[in-house]
Amino acid sequence: MKIAIQGERGSFSHEAALQMVPACKVVSCARSAEVFDSVLRGKAHKAVIPIENSLAGPVTEHYDLLLQHPLFIHREHPLRIRHNLIAAPGVRISQIRRVLSHPVALDQCRKFFHEHPRLESVPFYDTAGSVKHLMENKLRDTAGIASRQAASEYGARILKSGIEDDAKNFTRFLLISPGERWRRDATKTSIAFSLADESGALFKALAVFALRDISLSKIESRPVKGQPWRYVFYVDLKCGDSASARNALRHLQEICPMVKVLGIYSTG
Amino acid sequence: MKIAIQGERGSFSHEAALQMVPACKVVSCARSAEVFDSVLRGKAHKAVIPIENSLAGPVTEHYDLLLQHPLFIHREHPLRIRHNLIAAPGVRISQIRRVLSHPVALDQCRKFFHEHPRLESVPFYDTAGSVKHLMENKLRDTAGIASRQAASEYGARILKSGIEDDAKNFTRFLLISPGERWRRDATKTSIAFSLADESGALFKALAVFALRDISLSKIESRPVKGQPWRYVFYVDLKCGDSASARNALRHLQEICPMVKVLGIYSTG
Repeated sequence: MKIAIQGERGSFSHEAALQMVPACKVVSCARSAEVFDSVLRGKAHKAVIPIENSLAGPVTEHYDLLLQHPLFIHREHPLRIRHNLIAAPGVRISQIRRVLSHPVALDQCRKFFHEHPRLESVPFYDTAGSVKHLMENKLRDTAGIASRQAASEYGARILKSGIEDDAKNFTRFLLISPGERWRRDATKTSIAFSLADESGALFKALAVFALRDISLSKIESRPVKGQPWRYVFYVDLKCGDSASARNALRHLQEICPMVKVLGIYSTG
Repeated sequence: MKIAIQGERGSFSHEAALQMVPACKVVSCARSAEVFDSVLRGKAHKAVIPIENSLAGPVTEHYDLLLQHPLFIHREHPLRIRHNLIAAPGVRISQIRRVLSHPVALDQCRKFFHEHPRLESVPFYDTAGSVKHLMENKLRDTAGIASRQAASEYGARILKSGIEDDAKNFTRFLLISPGERWRRDATKTSIAFSLADESGALFKALAVFALRDISLSKIESRPVKGQPWRYVFYVDLKCGDSASARNALRHLQEICPMVKVLGIYSTG
């Protein structure tokens, strides 16, 4: 099974893909739009994408891409994000001067940098890419911050593991593919909808679920291009494909100009 | 009047500050947290911050900072974002090889790069900073993408103006300062609140406004640190300091563990 991911091999997406689809082969894509394209063009069977981090918030680009493409959510998986200080084999922590990583990862390891004022944090395009870079260029004064997977992928060594400030650091990953096959054991439904231009429109849309005792676990809004200050809403519902969920979606379609089901799936 | 902004002089924040507080002096801060600190420590009287772009979405860090600091919104101003290709005086467009700017600005000028495949787009930390950089280093093969203000600030020239893909490109800026002085002519109220851990909690919170015919113009959610998958909600209401607005807020406080009024202000 080929799984498209955004970023280098050894990224957290790679780690999530291996947990969700054991023994899969990952297809590394530079940009998120390429991840979606490579599945639609058959270069990969499915894709694994991060949708939300419990500290940094949503990956907004992936919300936009899910709405634009005929790919559907088949499973959700929360990955514990454990940041590791990684360097070339034989390098000691006392030799390190610069630490490269993605700005979000650097920002999640502030305490580590505070305790090691000698180390300069340098923004890099990718977490795993920082390890790839220091190994390819045989750097011995530079470390990266990345996943355990990145260390094993590029033959580097973990100098210190779990250097993130907050242990409650999770990213929700989604397994997506073409084809709207809803699972019988689904416990979660993700939808996108737009609102009529009238007072109380969002309240009415949420009433559709509240009146049927269907809980929301998440609401997100994204701007509509070309229509300043208008939004598309993304809602995660705590329900599978039940009669009341189908009635709620039919009710929502009555009052919203656009409704798209992004997936009815299981989590874990 | 000293106004703190994030980013270099000549940024869109600088442009917005001059429109909102004519003849102000701007205090340029490298990071957003410093903008808030410099007002609280009296280095600046007020601050002007972007909160949302009509294409790219919210500036999420500023939502988090507004909740954490005792600074309040006093006015809102939508700024038309016009991107310009800017180079040193005397440089012709045919000499340019590289174009520097903030990744969001580069992403909003895709058509321009598509029509000029010879030009390499290079991510830079700041729009105005790209113009400062090429002027300081006397670069003649490099242009920046930034505001008109950036060109005049650093003595550079606009080679092509309005190169953004979408003319409906606006950023809402907020004028913030200590002190909860609500304006009599206010037409907008911004609040933050958290929800009780129960089914339909968001619906009940929005009912507070719907039942009083108070419209929402925007809803945003941000993760709560240390509590994965729990959120703080930010809502903009189309109302000033009326009796029904005060009743709605009192009602909201009955049902939400946390409610903070971020500002009751005028727009334009």
